[in-house]
This record gives sequence, C-alpha cells and structure tokens, in this order.
Amino acid sequence: MSSQTVLLLPGDGIGPEVMAQARRVAEILVPDIKFETGLVGGASFDMHGTPMADETLEKARHVDAVLLGAVGGPKWNNVARDKRPEAGLLAIRKGLDVFANLRPAYCFPALVDASSLKREIIEGLDLMIVRELTGDVYFGEPRGIDVDDEGYRRGYDTALYTHPEIERVTRVAFDIARERKGQVCSVEKSNVMESGLFWRQEVTLAHAEFGAGIELTHMYADACAMELVRAPKQFDVILAGNLFGDILSDEASMLTGSIGMLPSASLGSPGTPGLYEPVHGSAPDIAGQGIANPCAMILSLEMALRWSLDREKAADALFAAVGKALENGARTKDLGGDLSTEGMADAIIAAL
Amino acid sequence: MSSQTVLLLPGDGIGPEVMAQARRVAEILVPDIKFETGLVGGASFDMHGTPMADETLEKARHVDAVLLGAVGGPKWNNVARDKRPEAGLLAIRKGLDVFANLRPAYCFPALVDASSLKREIIEGLDLMIVRELTGDVYFGEPRGIDVDDEGYRRGYDTALYTHPEIERVTRVAFDIARERKGQVCSVEKSNVMESGLFWRQEVTLAHAEFGAGIELTHMYADACAMELVRAPKQFDVILAGNLFGDILSDEASMLTGSIGMLPSASLGSPGTPGLYEPVHGSAPDIAGQGIANPCAMILSLEMALRWSLDREKAADALFAAVGKALENGARTKDLGGDLSTEGMADAIIAAL
Ligand SMILES: CC(C)[C@H](C(=O)O)[C@@H](O)C(=O)O
Ligand SMILES: CC(C)[C@H](C(=O)O)[C@@H](O)C(=O)O
Repeated sequence: MSSQTVLLLPGDGIGPEVMAQARRVAEILVPDIKFETGLVGGASFDMHGTPMADETLEKARHVDAVLLGAVGGPKWNNVARDKRPEAGLLAIRKGLDVFANLRPAYCFPALVDASSLKREIIEGLDLMIVRELTGDVYFGEPRGIDVDDEGYRRGYDTALYTHPEIERVTRVAFDIARERKGQVCSVEKSNVMESGLFWRQEVTLAHAEFGAGIELTHMYADACAMELVRAPKQFDVILAGNLFGDILSDEASMLTGSIGMLPSASLGSPGTPGLYEPVHGSAPDIAGQGIANPCAMILSLEMALRWSLDREKAADALFAAVGKALENGARTKDLGGDLSTEGMADAIIAAL
Repeated sequence: MSSQTVLLLPGDGIGPEVMAQARRVAEILVPDIKFETGLVGGASFDMHGTPMADETLEKARHVDAVLLGAVGGPKWNNVARDKRPEAGLLAIRKGLDVFANLRPAYCFPALVDASSLKREIIEGLDLMIVRELTGDVYFGEPRGIDVDDEGYRRGYDTALYTHPEIERVTRVAFDIARERKGQVCSVEKSNVMESGLFWRQEVTLAHAEFGAGIELTHMYADACAMELVRAPKQFDVILAGNLFGDILSDEASMLTGSIGMLPSASLGSPGTPGLYEPVHGSAPDIAGQGIANPCAMILSLEMALRWSLDREKAADALFAAVGKALENGARTKDLGGDLSTEGMADAIIAAL
C-alpha cells in the first residue's frame, strides 16, 4: 500500500478537541498514515479572512481523505454572509465535488435507552441516508433578495436538479444498498414540485439501467418525516436531494438519541478524496471544557478508513471498539456519564 | 346570529365516511347551521373532468366555512398532473387565499401510549404549527422540466416569498401565540437559502411592529426536525413556510401517535371562509369499510366552529366530548379498538 495522507480540518468550537482524539486513535490504529492539518470555518476566517482558503482546498484535493471537525459559533454571527463558517463548509463540499453524503443512523445496543423513542421502535435500527450534497436549492441560480415588479421586497432561490446529478448519486445509493438489504426509498415532493417529479423520473430510469437486484420505492418527504417517527426500522437506504436529505437525516440521527455518536461521509467520484465529519455541530456552549463526545469524530475516521483508505479491517476493529467501550460503560456527559473527551478516547483505545 | 352556511367537500377514499359523521355531530350540536355539499379531488375529476370545478370554488367563496374530507387514491395515479386530486387541494387553498394553515399537535391524555415516543417526552404535548399555505416552492415561478444549455435534462422550481406574504402569516402566528404561551419559533434555512434569510428578516421586522408580548426565536429547519423528536414540549407555536411547514407538521402530528385524531384549519383574511380538513389522507386501503377514525374530521368541525363560525362554546363542548369519549375507552381500529366510524361518532355524541 502506497503512503496515504489525511488532511485534518478541526474547525471551530469542540472541533479541535474531538479531532485531537480521532488523531490519537488513528496514530495507534493505522500508524503509517500521514497527517496534514488546515483551517476551516471561523478558525480560517480569523486567520485568512475567508472560511475556506484556496490553498487549503487545493491541499484537500491532493490527499486521500479529509476529516472535518465542525464549523461555526456565535463569534462569527455578524460576519458577511459569504464569509460565514457555513460558507466554508459549502465551499469544501462543492470544491471537492463530494456529491453523495452518507449519513448512517444506527442505534448502539448499549444506548437504546438514550432515545426519546420507545425501545421496541428503535432497537436494532440501522438505516443509511444517502443525501445529494452539491446541488438543489443550496446552489441553484437565480437566487437573491430584491424588489419585484410590484414594488414588494422578495427573497427567492432555485431548486434545481439535472440528469447527471441525480444519476450519479442514485448509483451510489444502489451500490450501498447492495451491501445491505437492497432496499432504496427515494424521497421527494413530486406531488407539488417539478424538480421532485424530475427526481422521481430520473431515479426510476437509473433503476432500470443500474438497479439490478435493488428494490426501489418512492415516498413524499412529508410522509417520510412521519414514517421515521412511526416505524424507522422499515427503511434500509433513504435517497434524497440536498434539502430534504438535510432535514430527514437530522431527524433520523436524533431518533437514536445520541447525536454525539453519529458520523458522516461525503463521497465524490472514484479516486477523489472523501470528506468525513460528525453529524453534530461545533457546540460552542461546551467548547474548551474537554467534555465533548469524541465518538462521532472517531467514527468519521472509521468511515474514512472504510470508504477512502481501503482499510476495512481497521475500520471493523474501530467500530467494534467503540461498541465495546460503550458496553463497558464508557459514557461522556451527553450520554449520561462523566468521562472527558480524552477519557472516552482512552476507553476506545483500550478496547481496540 | 345570522344564518350560517358550511360547504362540505367529502372528497375521496374515507373522506365521505368521516364527513358523514362530522355532519351528524354538527346537526345535533349546531342545528341552525345550513349545509351545502360539493365535489373535490378524484370525485370531482370523475364527474367534471377537473379536481376542483369553478362553480364549486365560487360556492366555497360564499359560505362561512368549508369542511374538506381528503383527496386522492391510486385510481387517479395516471391522470394528467394538473388534473390530479392533489391539484384540486392546491386550487381550493389558492382560490380561497387561505394563507395560514394551523396544525395543532396535541396529545390526548387517553392516548399517550399510542405514541412511538416515550410517555415523558409527549405527555401534555400541545403545540401549534402555523404553516404558510399559498406561497413558496408550491406556487413559485419559473418551474418546469426541460433541457439546459448543455443539453442535460433538468427539473426546477422557485422558492419565493414576498414581504406581504410573510407579514400576514407572521401576524396570524403572533395572534395565536397570544392566546397560548406567547412563544413563536420561526423556522427556515437562512444559512443556505436567500428566501430563508429574507423570511427571517421579515419575521423579525414584523415582530418589531406587531409582536408586542411575543417571544420570538429562530431555528433552522433541520434543527427543528431534530428538536421535535428530542423535546417537542419546548415549542409553543412554530411558524414556517409552506414546504418546511408541510414536513415539520407531519412529523409533529406523528409524535402524538394518533394521526387519525388531528385536524387542521386554513385561514384567509378576516371575513373570508376558512378551510378545515383532517391531517390524515384519504386512506384508500380502508375506504368503504366503515372503520376509519372520524375524530380528525369531527375536530376539524370543532376548529371551524371556533375560527370561522364564532361558536366557541360549541367548539369547547365538542373538544371536551372527544376527550371524554376517549377516556371512556372509545377506540377505532387505528387506536387499537374495534369501534366503527359511526360507533366512534356515537360515543362522541353520547359524551356531548
Ligand atoms: C451548516 C449547514 C450549512 C449544513 C447544511 O445545511 O448542509 C448542515 O446542516 C449539515 O447538514 O451539514
Ligand atoms: C397532498 C399534498 C399536495 C399536500 C401538501 O403538500 O400540501 C399535503 O401533504 C398536505 O400537507 O396537505
């Protein structure tokens, strides 16, 4: 295996704290991997006047995987819109063209009771949301705030999907489903949106062409938001556009009750680096206290090992170690325990 | 009180069954109210070739309130897009200009255990979603499916809000909050959408002008989808645009576990008729069996009595009767019982 490099972008808030632990785990588990570091979000703005510097993006393009902590915080609330930490996140997603955002929602057996849902509803939950990440209303043009012909102020955006955008992310969803139960539920609002109708048509076409062995169903986004609460275990893979995927994946991750546990992977074309980040945010309220749960960041490393670095065995070992640490009772504050960020990582390392 | 008229549009599927029971209740509770009936959705399409005939809309404009059952069913799956049952629903909403959709999510004490959420999370839940109903990506132009300059097929929609649209629905949310805990949480994606940023700005302006006594907060739609699962009782009134309101109100209603119980009201300017409909759909799978839960329809009547017909006492009595019937153990199949649609209405009438 030729030498691999991972770029670490700790970001803001608790980002640096959880990233430090993920790095520690990586240095033990896969000591041959090299690390570089960079700035993103508010941290980058403070240093470079932009939430994502061109050089950092360039660096990101040439590594094997990028780990990102979290961005944002009240400190940058009054920064110009295109310089806000979130803009850095959108810039790196778009810049790396990581169009497929994989957000697993699984329930760790040891944490079943952390959920606000009843045990029988979520025990054994294991679903994967595949969210399109570089299109839709996030990037569509025209968009703006101005005054219309009648003299009224207005704000508008364009929800837009093209054939290649839908096809490529649908193929990722099919590939992932093949390693699972083979079921993909595609979500849109084709009953009221033209882009939704187009989405459904294109997913259906892609299914005919690339979906051998895949059971494809369709659901409206509002119905999906309901069904996730009612009976989340009915789903295997949910495929959605950028906006619906944003909302539904956050809802799905909260079903497990432990959002501090959940990682995500954002993948581009084969051979390009993936972007790995926790589902949780930068949690400025607890930043600097050393009490953040590092598991989501460590499991983001686990996804990087699996999806970008071809280290499936190391990934399996790491996933198992996290589960074992939990079974052994290791808990940070968000999980009702009193371990520090470092203490939680210690428990995972011990279980490795 | 001058004579009042209510237009009944039973619609499709279980619509006619539940509407018949709401009418029966109304004839006992408020015998002086007159009824007219009309067709909507698939039923209208079958008769008139359109899911909402001009004459029906004209009739609706001249009554005091409109009760609608539900629309849609597999029978009309292959009907042209602008003739589908859902198009009838959008046409009557737009035609009556009912811009404020009120969707309460409350948990009946007798039904706490029907929820997939733990008792402590939803016991006592009582939140109101105010959803803008005649704007946003539902109606914005341009929209379509065509081929772009590079030769790719594409689908697109326009998410659009104007100043008057946001102001009027925000004022409704404030008015409603004043009768409750005085808290309004406005929801958007202002971090990624211009129409979302505009929404937040306009709601903030409206608050300065019309929001005396109201505590206004803002939340991103993805965070709201999470918070509804984690701790729904934190909310009093949620204010959202048409699309986010659609998704979040469906999620919120499912929290209660008994979607067959939940009504909605859609209000226009003072002096114009409101539109009242259950949150549930037409449930074609159980249509014609006489087993549908009529409560959501009967509670939609209750909302009509309260919001359009100025019969607050009758509304209070009806709401209490539904609660009492439940306490007495009355349950349709969806609630785990074996009462028929008519039997459930009997129980409510007995409790009146
Ligand atoms: C921070 C924000 C721009 C971002 C999004 O909307 O994509 C976040 O919610 C996410 O899901 O990663
Ligand atoms: C049937 C559909 C067009 C409608 C909507 O999206 O508004 C429904 O979901 C609702 O919420 O009443």
